[in-house]
Amino acid sequence: MAPSQRKALINVDMGEGYGNYICGPDKELLPMIDQANVACGFHAGDPLIMAETVALCKSHGVKIGAHPGLPDVQGFGRREIKMTPEEHTANVVYQIGALQAFLDREGVEMHHVKPHGILYGMMIRDIEVARAVWAAVPKGMRVFVLPGTNMEKAAKEAGLEFWAEYFGDVKYHADGTLKIDRKKKPWKIEDVKAHVDGQLRLSQVVAVTGETVTLEVGDSPITICCHSDSPGCVEIVKAAREVADQFNRERGL
Amino acid sequence: MAPSQRKALINVDMGEGYGNYICGPDKELLPMIDQANVACGFHAGDPLIMAETVALCKSHGVKIGAHPGLPDVQGFGRREIKMTPEEHTANVVYQIGALQAFLDREGVEMHHVKPHGILYGMMIRDIEVARAVWAAVPKGMRVFVLPGTNMEKAAKEAGLEFWAEYFGDVKYHADGTLKIDRKKKPWKIEDVKAHVDGQLRLSQVVAVTGETVTLEVGDSPITICCHSDSPGCVEIVKAAREVADQFNRERGL
Amino acid sequence: MAPSQRKALINVDMGEGYGNYICGPDKELLPMIDQANVACGFHAGDPLIMAETVALCKSHGVKIGAHPGLPDVQGFGRREIKMTPEEHTANVVYQIGALQAFLDREGVEMHHVKPHGILYGMMIRDIEVARAVWAAVPKGMRVFVLPGTNMEKAAKEAGLEFWAEYFGDVKYHADGTLKIDRKKKPWKIEDVKAHVDGQLRLSQVVAVTGETVTLEVGDSPITICCHSDSPGCVEIVKAAREVADQFNRERGL
Amino acid sequence: MAPSQRKALINVDMGEGYGNYICGPDKELLPMIDQANVACGFHAGDPLIMAETVALCKSHGVKIGAHPGLPDVQGFGRREIKMTPEEHTANVVYQIGALQAFLDREGVEMHHVKPHGILYGMMIRDIEVARAVWAAVPKGMRVFVLPGTNMEKAAKEAGLEFWAEYFGDVKYHADGTLKIDRKKKPWKIEDVKAHVDGQLRLSQVVAVTGETVTLEVGDSPITICCHSDSPGCVEIVKAAREVADQFNRERGL
Repeated sequence: MAPSQRKALINVDMGEGYGNYICGPDKELLPMIDQANVACGFHAGDPLIMAETVALCKSHGVKIGAHPGLPDVQGFGRREIKMTPEEHTANVVYQIGALQAFLDREGVEMHHVKPHGILYGMMIRDIEVARAVWAAVPKGMRVFVLPGTNMEKAAKEAGLEFWAEYFGDVKYHADGTLKIDRKKKPWKIEDVKAHVDGQLRLSQVVAVTGETVTLEVGDSPITICCHSDSPGCVEIVKAAREVADQFNRERGL
Repeated sequence: MAPSQRKALINVDMGEGYGNYICGPDKELLPMIDQANVACGFHAGDPLIMAETVALCKSHGVKIGAHPGLPDVQGFGRREIKMTPEEHTANVVYQIGALQAFLDREGVEMHHVKPHGILYGMMIRDIEVARAVWAAVPKGMRVFVLPGTNMEKAAKEAGLEFWAEYFGDVKYHADGTLKIDRKKKPWKIEDVKAHVDGQLRLSQVVAVTGETVTLEVGDSPITICCHSDSPGCVEIVKAAREVADQFNRERGL
Repeated sequence: MAPSQRKALINVDMGEGYGNYICGPDKELLPMIDQANVACGFHAGDPLIMAETVALCKSHGVKIGAHPGLPDVQGFGRREIKMTPEEHTANVVYQIGALQAFLDREGVEMHHVKPHGILYGMMIRDIEVARAVWAAVPKGMRVFVLPGTNMEKAAKEAGLEFWAEYFGDVKYHADGTLKIDRKKKPWKIEDVKAHVDGQLRLSQVVAVTGETVTLEVGDSPITICCHSDSPGCVEIVKAAREVADQFNRERGL
Repeated sequence: MAPSQRKALINVDMGEGYGNYICGPDKELLPMIDQANVACGFHAGDPLIMAETVALCKSHGVKIGAHPGLPDVQGFGRREIKMTPEEHTANVVYQIGALQAFLDREGVEMHHVKPHGILYGMMIRDIEVARAVWAAVPKGMRVFVLPGTNMEKAAKEAGLEFWAEYFGDVKYHADGTLKIDRKKKPWKIEDVKAHVDGQLRLSQVVAVTGETVTLEVGDSPITICCHSDSPGCVEIVKAAREVADQFNRERGL
């Protein structure tokens, strides 16, 4: 199945507040998205927020995935922390288990697992980290990953169901890896649209240094990621949704 | 079934280190005990310690229970924190789920749930806290509780399997509630033996203020708790084990 | 000096974000206020935010005070935690020292100390907590306290300079103590104005249960507290400022 | 002044417990040492432990230095965390300020600043980190550093008083940098003695890969570091003390 014949879906990180702190406008975003990556308390989220977020996603019919991150609320999981493979595995087992318990109470299945922030970036760069994280995920589970990277290779080794992920509000380096910022920067809406459109139709992006990069997407399902902590995220998700819907309509998907 | 006809078992808190910090001599204690209450990362324990503790308990054939606590490593779950019922429930759902994931990987069933430290004390005093905590526990699960208290009442309301708990190294107040210290104090071994023996044979303890207290134990199974952070805990658990074994032998249990 | 002859000042909690999380619109509030209570990293704030907040306050000529809280970012310092007096003292010594270091670098003096959230509430109720917190404050330092309470009594015992505090966006119980909510609730602007006006002119408030309460303000300086995490805080602070300015103008202060 | 004419002193990390967790046998070590590096609550230590440790050091006449680390109790400050220079500076300002407040209460001067664990290692490798950390230290303060490294270069740039540090229980790589383990490994006492003796008399160590490494020590004062969390630390410190005392006696120092 060529990328151009697959339905474009939208996933967004959700439940990334902490205590009284609010991250994104989850309630405004939920009606526009297909899949939520729910923070599991390490980089963001806390048990009460997880309970509320799972209930909220269920009420909107949005699929729920685990969104494990590094144990660093202060750094929002976007500061690299060097750990042993055993630590990475244990941390992700713990977070997935915690979210699973909330899903069990709501009678909802876990749809996927998607690592957060710099952990995602570390997995792209370092196959040992990718293997350690995927070792924590139950066999057969869907995982959202940057295609053509160590993330994909290790996911396939681990017997996981690989879904390729494009990005609505993250830029790429010339080598096809992501530029992960500590704090999200603003986007022009037309740039979001062009960025998503190029990925969906051509599997191409323009790197931050100007090169056109072709993304190595195989025949896996695809989903477009946006972030609830991007400035203007409601408009960004709306734009990504419009591009995806148009793309899907043209193909009768 | 009268208490005197039930087999006396021993449970001990385990996996209560944190990072490099070691709490008790878990490996020395495991051969002497029947059930381990495994810390779940809130008052003590971390994901790596949980993974190791679960594997260790399994290798010794020791039953594993979840030991959820208040979110306070610095206070070791022994400083009271006022929370809403919703927070208590979510915190315990989270911790049980996290442990369950490690058990699933080892193919071991969760044997019981036993709250830790001051959370246990808050449940004794306040039925709303007891209800909030038990609301997080899957129906039918065994729970270890101080008998004759709000813990028992709320556990029965919640459809949980109630096991009465005696204590090897915790003293009682005259009203039958526990005296929970921030740091465990030393015990004379003969006092541990008399304390356990009195609870097993007579359902009685001498309160810290000198009164003889009769513990309201019904016909539930019983288990004796000792703590791995008590000074001299190896000797304490050994003493409790001897008293329990003698008690069991006399009854052919 | 009667209350009606003292200039009304405005203090607001500042720097209460954490990592990527933003709490209030500090930059919009600073031009309207006289004194900032800067979070010290226990209930909110982190070292980087403290550095930025101190520089920001200095650039606006706003006086800076330490705002120590309970060690509980998740609960925003609004969940009661039971501690020993020694812990309270050590926690507050630590936080004041940390802020002092940032002030030293900017060459700014610490203007006052004001405890945060439920710690403030615990000091009102329990003189042992009040004594433990004030024991951490250098002699002669200004402290902002609810007048006529244990906070005032213990502050005077400790040789601290007592400033009475009124509230722009916190309601009172009939006994003159504060109703401290975990999350701030919205206020109507006319209610803020009436609330502040009543305190300034009459030393009176209407309690949440309807009684008129007279606040025991002696001859100390006074300052009106508003919170940067109240919904609509810019309008609230603006309203408090207007009432205060009018009050001051009428008295040529 | 040649190294061989300078008095050999001993410094040890102290107060590295956390809540109920104990790290090293501080009370046994204090009579044997000259300088304590007191943990400041980020990698270990908490306010109560800091208060107690400062009082303890004072009572033994041991000089007190600040021992700032990365914000990671779980990793004991021995997991690398990537931060901006601004974060490093703010974190160290915060920690030094917190300790200063405890020293002020005891009327004791801060003797030195010595970064902990992997932060020390990051400063050796990366002059930007070294500059960011030293930017937080008041001008003229003594700092303990690995000589001949970025730590020394940046300390001199920053106008700090540079003391060279040898190690009693840490091994070196062939390039003169340290091998920092997450958990300290055991040492044979004769190896400690030879390690210290070689550093004191020859400014030489044998690297983990077997090479003899000459340490670039100039004419700064010197101090030998041991760790209170090394297995058998009492014997290690005793051995280092004996070698140092013998060295000093021979020189009439």
